[in-house]
Amino acid sequence: MTNTDIHLLLTGDELMSGDTVDSNSAMIAQALAAQGQAIAEKITLGDDRERLVTALKRTIDNAGVMVMNGGLGPTQDDLTAELVAAAAGVPLALNQEAEKHVREWCAARSIEPNDANLKQAWLPEGAAIIHNPQGSAVGFALQVNRTLILTTPGVPGELRAMLPEVCERITHAIGGGAVHRVRLQTFGIGESTAQALIDEDAEPWPEGVVLGFRAGIPQLEIKLTTDSLSPDVRHCRATLERLIGDHILGEDDTTLAGALQQTLRSQGKKMVAAESCTGGLIAAMMTAEPGASAVFEAGFVTYANSIKHSVLGVDPTTLENEGAVSEPVVRQMLSGALKRSGADIGIAVSGIAGPDGGSDDKPVGTVWLAWGTINDMQTLKTILPTDRAMFQKLVAAAGLDLIRRQLLGLPKLPHYFSRRAI
Amino acid sequence: MTNTDIHLLLTGDELMSGDTVDSNSAMIAQALAAQGQAIAEKITLGDDRERLVTALKRTIDNAGVMVMNGGLGPTQDDLTAELVAAAAGVPLALNQEAEKHVREWCAARSIEPNDANLKQAWLPEGAAIIHNPQGSAVGFALQVNRTLILTTPGVPGELRAMLPEVCERITHAIGGGAVHRVRLQTFGIGESTAQALIDEDAEPWPEGVVLGFRAGIPQLEIKLTTDSLSPDVRHCRATLERLIGDHILGEDDTTLAGALQQTLRSQGKKMVAAESCTGGLIAAMMTAEPGASAVFEAGFVTYANSIKHSVLGVDPTTLENEGAVSEPVVRQMLSGALKRSGADIGIAVSGIAGPDGGSDDKPVGTVWLAWGTINDMQTLKTILPTDRAMFQKLVAAAGLDLIRRQLLGLPKLPHYFSRRAI
Repeated sequence: MTNTDIHLLLTGDELMSGDTVDSNSAMIAQALAAQGQAIAEKITLGDDRERLVTALKRTIDNAGVMVMNGGLGPTQDDLTAELVAAAAGVPLALNQEAEKHVREWCAARSIEPNDANLKQAWLPEGAAIIHNPQGSAVGFALQVNRTLILTTPGVPGELRAMLPEVCERITHAIGGGAVHRVRLQTFGIGESTAQALIDEDAEPWPEGVVLGFRAGIPQLEIKLTTDSLSPDVRHCRATLERLIGDHILGEDDTTLAGALQQTLRSQGKKMVAAESCTGGLIAAMMTAEPGASAVFEAGFVTYANSIKHSVLGVDPTTLENEGAVSEPVVRQMLSGALKRSGADIGIAVSGIAGPDGGSDDKPVGTVWLAWGTINDMQTLKTILPTDRAMFQKLVAAAGLDLIRRQLLGLPKLPHYFSRRAI
Repeated sequence: MTNTDIHLLLTGDELMSGDTVDSNSAMIAQALAAQGQAIAEKITLGDDRERLVTALKRTIDNAGVMVMNGGLGPTQDDLTAELVAAAAGVPLALNQEAEKHVREWCAARSIEPNDANLKQAWLPEGAAIIHNPQGSAVGFALQVNRTLILTTPGVPGELRAMLPEVCERITHAIGGGAVHRVRLQTFGIGESTAQALIDEDAEPWPEGVVLGFRAGIPQLEIKLTTDSLSPDVRHCRATLERLIGDHILGEDDTTLAGALQQTLRSQGKKMVAAESCTGGLIAAMMTAEPGASAVFEAGFVTYANSIKHSVLGVDPTTLENEGAVSEPVVRQMLSGALKRSGADIGIAVSGIAGPDGGSDDKPVGTVWLAWGTINDMQTLKTILPTDRAMFQKLVAAAGLDLIRRQLLGLPKLPHYFSRRAI
């Protein structure tokens, strides 16, 4: 029987010292999940010869596949090829394909390959290279008894570029790979609420479609996975559209700002933001997306009250009587921003991000939002009692979503806000 | 002889699926490093009974200390207490201190403890609790033969609150803890340049002081570590001040924005930002720091050319003749922002973040910066050929640093920019 266990062995002192947070193993796990496979065990070690050999020997015959990550570079610390050779009981040999790759890589950079460069072409005898389109160090594949060892570089960009070949080799060795997956990006709904809506739905969920969630801030990714291209996935997608369609931003890696940009673009409209408590984050989120200039006209970070007046024309009497965190002030901020910029639609926010500045009447976490057009303006007050960074992120994201909802004629409030709005 | 190896065992299906990036182990590693200890081996497993028991049995007697993270919660998946008991060969028992904690935690939330809550008070017989000031699940310590097992929760905030007691128990078991460490935050200098300046310095570096780096974006942390409170650390700190003092922002977790806020505050000054290519990121970085309202007056995200004119008063003829990415335009943006806001000092940036919008004359990555006061304004052009997100981060950070430098009378250019400025 084929052993289908996949083990992961990560190496590097920087992973043990806490100086680097390992994101490579999540990248590998996601690539494997996309073809229906999972990592069974993950071991992380420093650049320590003895511990690495022990771990290698323990894994050989214990796993069907072992993916190693790190230790392929040109320096003395990079032990992977040497230790895999030792564990497999074969010598290192100059691999012709790897040597060709290193020489071509150096030539493209007009440098003469030195010993350190060429060290990367010495691989365990019998190893096949795994191509590295980005860096000088190739990976390699070596069958040791019943275990296929695959080595990959620690540099995330290089690893990403090599994963398709790695996944193909794994599928070839232990099967899998026939998985069909749809990833939906959503905003404004939590995992438990989405799950409850699906559980309570009159239509039964098809057994062959696995539902998965990946909670991010501020988005929630919903994954539909099957082992076939059955119509069930389309059916489930339709169910989700029916139950939580207004929360769905798009597929794959669509962001909230990207979805809003797309909507603005398709309607030929431009937006403006007037920010107090979010301090520029709404503008920064929109302009982080390439192509922002076609839809984002301007942002006003009117942090001081005097600026709310001088730049956006907020009435000083209103500021004095109602306070900066109030409905009339966000209305006037939005009106001012729309007039000043000539944008079609906009968002204004004013709130208390904390940790200081709260009162009994307006505790930390209180925020007023105004959004829409000169002729169709809406407002909302809510309280998000969390830390400053999270408060700013959630308010900024909600601001973008409220514009998106208005443009698309969706229900005014995301689920999250409808439970909290006061 | 005491075995001083520290092993880490992380559990949770979410860590294997790639849905969660593990930052807990870096947090634990840093806390240990601060007392001169390192993690020797790290194993990550899903919520899998058989694999967890195998790993536990392998670690017992092989490590002096094993820290487990995850699996302490109230659900069926939370197997830690049960499996540690099994591996140690002791039964689970209702721990009185743990039960008291759970009951108090529930009472504070006006809920009646249910079976799931109380499950968290069943610990291996003989275990001592590790207090959890934040959550309902306590951790526990259990000596099994020669190995001290310490369990901690997977929720990062709870883990952070429990680490001091965990570290104390580790020190008590295997020694260490007498380390003295200074962490300096710097901006605008790379690890290799800093190392080279130290290597080339005429004064020898004291042997007892270990120099370490932790590269972040945009800051570089420099760590000085000794096993005693010798005057050598003060001496090294003075050496760093002499060699790269203008890059040092402060100690511990000081951020660039925090350092600038401090400087502005101490000089009683307020700043303004006029942003094009950074799209609000400068304002967002400043306002992410609590207390920003005392020093941050306003931000203008003048993304469209028409807004540069209408809001900041940039001359349309200059925009037409010189282009938006030009020295006269950033000068006029800064003048306009200073006048409109009444702020004392400011920064204006205009550049091409990409991926589109570049030309032969002004390739993607080109940026003009203007900073200072109405009467003392400086400008700089540079090219940062990187991706959009990194470009925006570096330009925004440089903008803050240039104001800091001007306020403190430091050399105009950070090292990074002096190599690239054109």
